[in-house]
Amino acid sequence: MSRESGELVNLDAYLEQRRRWIDAALERLLPVPSGPASTVAAAMRHAVLAPGKRLRPIVAIAACEACGGSVDDVLEPASALELLHTYSLVHDDLPAMDDDDLRRGRPTVHRAFSEAAAILAGDALHTLTFEILATRPAGDPAAARRSHAAAIVARRAGMSGMVGGQIADLEAEGTAPDPERLEWIHAHKTAALLSASAEVGAIHAGADEAARSALGRYGHALGMAFQIADDLLDCTASAQDLGKTPGKDRKVGKATYPALFGLDASRERAEAWVECALAPLASVDRWSEPLEALARFAVTRTR
Amino acid sequence: MSRESGELVNLDAYLEQRRRWIDAALERLLPVPSGPASTVAAAMRHAVLAPGKRLRPIVAIAACEACGGSVDDVLEPASALELLHTYSLVHDDLPAMDDDDLRRGRPTVHRAFSEAAAILAGDALHTLTFEILATRPAGDPAAARRSHAAAIVARRAGMSGMVGGQIADLEAEGTAPDPERLEWIHAHKTAALLSASAEVGAIHAGADEAARSALGRYGHALGMAFQIADDLLDCTASAQDLGKTPGKDRKVGKATYPALFGLDASRERAEAWVECALAPLASVDRWSEPLEALARFAVTRTR
Repeated sequence: MSRESGELVNLDAYLEQRRRWIDAALERLLPVPSGPASTVAAAMRHAVLAPGKRLRPIVAIAACEACGGSVDDVLEPASALELLHTYSLVHDDLPAMDDDDLRRGRPTVHRAFSEAAAILAGDALHTLTFEILATRPAGDPAAARRSHAAAIVARRAGMSGMVGGQIADLEAEGTAPDPERLEWIHAHKTAALLSASAEVGAIHAGADEAARSALGRYGHALGMAFQIADDLLDCTASAQDLGKTPGKDRKVGKATYPALFGLDASRERAEAWVECALAPLASVDRWSEPLEALARFAVTRTR
Repeated sequence: MSRESGELVNLDAYLEQRRRWIDAALERLLPVPSGPASTVAAAMRHAVLAPGKRLRPIVAIAACEACGGSVDDVLEPASALELLHTYSLVHDDLPAMDDDDLRRGRPTVHRAFSEAAAILAGDALHTLTFEILATRPAGDPAAARRSHAAAIVARRAGMSGMVGGQIADLEAEGTAPDPERLEWIHAHKTAALLSASAEVGAIHAGADEAARSALGRYGHALGMAFQIADDLLDCTASAQDLGKTPGKDRKVGKATYPALFGLDASRERAEAWVECALAPLASVDRWSEPLEALARFAVTRTR
């Protein structure tokens, strides 16, 4: 399923095809509700199988293809990244955190089930991520790759990444805006996992250290652009487009780029991050066009 | 640090020495509070560094020693099991679940910090577990072992293990007692991770499949004995001895062995599980005495 350099890409078709593969993998990887723990299985499916952009798995797949690998090399680890992302959404939406009612156009898990089910479904998705990242057929020569990928994902998902970003974000609510702290929050809360996603793709393609590091820089910059665009959409888009409650950031006094710098300067900052994302792709000699298109899409999307 | 078969063991000295090694490893592995995410780091340390039995790491170490490995072979993965166990305690204690105020003689994390900090500290401990299980020095020949151990732990920690047990336990509150369901809950909530702990020890000693499976059966039976003993202590011990609130099980209408069968029959059942734990050790030809002593200790302990 790999493609030649220079081939033109229709981004919509590219995304649609990969979303279908990812959704099929997620359906297969998630437990089927039955037995005494069926509530958690049902809650996991409610959260994950709602329509989503699947950005993290798509980035992992596109990075793998850009390094000469195939979709099959990375489909399961890539899909595991969506489970990890979803666990973080389920926990962030809890009443004790962002207290959200709507996510991906559906009631949040604690609204549709219960708070206990939401905590446990998030926990189970979190564990399932690492079960998939670590599991391999016996004698698989890719064992070392898997272990490497799992370690990178764990590092970017925990205290020095996503979880660290979330607590800093919560604690910044209602405090004086601080550009440096805001960049720290975006880097940890969003960019950390996107950079890990790109690296997971590179690792599963068997890429060398230089390519992995270039893809990591791409993912980081993509994440920064994506998060500023998210803050902008929170100001300008509708609940129907977003599938979640808009205007929440301002309501809870969250520091955002638009709040600090205004809409125009925020759009410029997002564009600058897109340029930062494109730069490292110059050293990737395979099929990097989807990665370029994804970076541009991060800031032009309307939801 | 391995010992010869047949050597007599003073269990107290054995446990004390290993607890010291484990506590030093935990201190080293946990992040030091600093920067924008310091609340989560402080909450993680509050939860983990409180005095604990360290049963799961000790089982992993004893299993490794019983299979001819050394403490150094398994100290970090073993300590990671304590992080995983602690994450589950922090989340189980939350208001939406068991709503507990006291744990290991300290206020629970959501009481000492906040609910958001408790959810995120649990999440960060969960991720850190897999970061440690998956991380290895480049070129380490033990990479495949680590990947194998991480996959086993993930399987027993998620929906088909600990998390599944917790939701079934919560949903059984106030319903008609059912012995079969109760055994399912104990097997998933407690025995799953103890059997994984014993297997992690065997894997890191480089044990063969037969020894790993024997140790897994040992850990499962130990866990079943341990959980019945826990239910008994909830009826009979003081808050000071337990370091957590006693009498809670009956208060919330939780199905327990004592509630179903009475104290005497429950003690007999726990003793029977100890015998089940000892049986597979007959095939372990190294130093299995600490494992035997641990199994007996599971039911004779007073806290």
